[in-house]
Amino acid sequence: MSEDFLKVALAAKEAAAELAPLPRAPKDAALRVIADALVAASAEIVEANALDVRRAVENGVSEYMVDRLRLDDARIASIAEAVRQVADLPDPVGEVVRGNTLPNGLELRQVRVPLGVIGIIYEGRPNVTVDAAALCLKSGNATLLRGSSSAYESNTVLVRVMQEALAGTEVPAGTVQLVPGTSRDSAKELMRARGLVDVLIPRGGASLINSVVEESTVPVIETGVGNCHVYVDADADVELAVQILLNSKVQRPSVCNAAETLLVHAAVADAFVPRALAALAAEGVTVHGDDRIAAYGDVVAAGEEDFRTEYLSLDIAAAVVDSLEEAVAHIRRYGSAHTEAIVTRSVGAARRFVSLVDSAAVAVNASTRFTDGGEFGFGAEIGISTQKLHARGPMGLPELTSTKWVYTGEGQLRTAQGTVLASTEACSR
Amino acid sequence: MSEDFLKVALAAKEAAAELAPLPRAPKDAALRVIADALVAASAEIVEANALDVRRAVENGVSEYMVDRLRLDDARIASIAEAVRQVADLPDPVGEVVRGNTLPNGLELRQVRVPLGVIGIIYEGRPNVTVDAAALCLKSGNATLLRGSSSAYESNTVLVRVMQEALAGTEVPAGTVQLVPGTSRDSAKELMRARGLVDVLIPRGGASLINSVVEESTVPVIETGVGNCHVYVDADADVELAVQILLNSKVQRPSVCNAAETLLVHAAVADAFVPRALAALAAEGVTVHGDDRIAAYGDVVAAGEEDFRTEYLSLDIAAAVVDSLEEAVAHIRRYGSAHTEAIVTRSVGAARRFVSLVDSAAVAVNASTRFTDGGEFGFGAEIGISTQKLHARGPMGLPELTSTKWVYTGEGQLRTAQGTVLASTEACSR
Repeated sequence: MSEDFLKVALAAKEAAAELAPLPRAPKDAALRVIADALVAASAEIVEANALDVRRAVENGVSEYMVDRLRLDDARIASIAEAVRQVADLPDPVGEVVRGNTLPNGLELRQVRVPLGVIGIIYEGRPNVTVDAAALCLKSGNATLLRGSSSAYESNTVLVRVMQEALAGTEVPAGTVQLVPGTSRDSAKELMRARGLVDVLIPRGGASLINSVVEESTVPVIETGVGNCHVYVDADADVELAVQILLNSKVQRPSVCNAAETLLVHAAVADAFVPRALAALAAEGVTVHGDDRIAAYGDVVAAGEEDFRTEYLSLDIAAAVVDSLEEAVAHIRRYGSAHTEAIVTRSVGAARRFVSLVDSAAVAVNASTRFTDGGEFGFGAEIGISTQKLHARGPMGLPELTSTKWVYTGEGQLRTAQGTVLASTEACSR
Repeated sequence: MSEDFLKVALAAKEAAAELAPLPRAPKDAALRVIADALVAASAEIVEANALDVRRAVENGVSEYMVDRLRLDDARIASIAEAVRQVADLPDPVGEVVRGNTLPNGLELRQVRVPLGVIGIIYEGRPNVTVDAAALCLKSGNATLLRGSSSAYESNTVLVRVMQEALAGTEVPAGTVQLVPGTSRDSAKELMRARGLVDVLIPRGGASLINSVVEESTVPVIETGVGNCHVYVDADADVELAVQILLNSKVQRPSVCNAAETLLVHAAVADAFVPRALAALAAEGVTVHGDDRIAAYGDVVAAGEEDFRTEYLSLDIAAAVVDSLEEAVAHIRRYGSAHTEAIVTRSVGAARRFVSLVDSAAVAVNASTRFTDGGEFGFGAEIGISTQKLHARGPMGLPELTSTKWVYTGEGQLRTAQGTVLASTEACSR
């Protein structure tokens, strides 16, 4: 482990210990100071960002990626506004999750506490630098940020501005740390920092997430890969199904909760597929269909690979199935366990689909696009977990916490016969 | 991956998919059938176990370890009784953890679902084979069991009896699987079975757990290492402190929630330490003390290593500290984040200690021995997690589950302006 990395990791760990017991007020105050400082430093941030943007353009990066990278005064103002919104959210730390008085008189409670140090590995969107730092700070955690090397100049200034802002608050300045350097080694150090980093959250595309999962010895929360399905049941309202399919596919094709595969029950195919193909074509969607879909119109022939693909574009794979169970088997085989929707009028079919599908979210007669922390009412999200441990689905502030058991007594001792009370000194209580 | 391993792993995965949607009644019925079958097969189990015991004795294994390995009719009856008790516990699957109707009319709920396939790696206690399988089955999970090679004959028969019992029930027989073979490679296959195994829980000593954490690519829940502390505050009731210390240390020294280190505030050392040393000596406890403890009596000199040690024996490390904060720093540096107790009459000190100590459990004026699923009222536990993700502290049945988000609507679509409802066919609803 390099000295540079160890220095920031230890600083984050020390800050995390100081930050954890802080109540809500000083954390909210610090977030507002950060928001003001970002706005005040707009010129400096834009200047640093221009270096990143110029290098990206020189390197022939696509206009879409350059746009994600670019910061201007308006974007900085909106980043700062998002920080103020995080300040307005309730603090998950200290929430009593469960609690009761045990038969032996011990008062037992399970209380939310921060995780500690959270590592974030992400791509070339500098807004994530501030967004992740703010969500972690609010939930009492220190952050080790490792953004794309393409945004290093921007991230360096953003983190410095946040640290300088914190220096005048009760929150330790070390709470927000940028992993130094832009080499792949610096990302690896973060992935191997078991004992220094409590959890690692990758935010980005499938290849980034897979490489973090493969290489990391720190516990990882996988986020975001969404090969989402819309299943149109035998009992579906055809018009409703067309609209839910369209909305799931085209409302924002580049995001993880967009639909990537359509499955249609054979009994409704005659009524549904022609209308669906026409509607998709009208929206410019290319359909990659199996033979039974192809019987209804012009589609690109779908190979097995299509059913595994998260297109994130105006493409959709499509197949006809003979039963709800076959649809579920398809989803289990090819899906990423993010979000699957069923369109049906049948209570029994809805109940069976919800029960059998093993995904983070299941939608009944609604668009897949609602699997989102904002839509669920969390106020903000750090990502959408597609794993089963710790957090599943949209992750809000409570998902950035752990818990601690506290039990309070008056001298309870455990014996083979049960609890006895210790005797105390005379007049001592 | 060997064909033998792949076969059982796939069988477990398939069984898990069938088992997950089952309601409580068939699972409870299957557990009772297993309990009866174990009792009926006592002779066969004892016979197989005798082979393991004979080999252990021939290999010069300690009498303590041989005793943990040994099964007789009475022990099998008590294992079966424990299975019946698991059947009596509430089913965590299907519990609605959170839920509300969103402003757009979507009915949102977060529901407990099984994790899927749980791998258990454990030592030479064949009762764990049945205990773990029963807890996993009750929570809707399939199990891949990998016990010590020293208990392989016993485990083989126990798993076969359970599988044969399940064959006559609604629970798939493949729900309980033994990892074939006794080589280290077979354990490694389990640790590397990412995608086939959802979580791995090691049950055993520190070296087993560390090797699983190091080598596993499957998510692991760390359990059980307990370097627990008793801190006697300046404001402690001295007699209460002596009794809590003694109970924490000697009531059952071999378990993870037994105390391993005593920390004493300097202000109470004169009053407390002589009485504590006398009481510990009377119970046969060897004290490994720092210089300031040594000033009060005959102790073994403690090196830094003593403060890191989970003795699991009638030994305790001991030091005098100058403040509560110094005690907390000591615990953070040397502890395993299992359970720490404070003895104090001061509300402020208790509050500060609870807030600053970052461990799975914190006890105030009570023995460390209460950190236990049974004592907490869980009915049974699969282990005590000392990590922060997913589960922390005693793990009952709910900790063997994940969750799934379900949202039900009537055609909700997401637009940039908010939710709109899809229009439906005439008379179709």
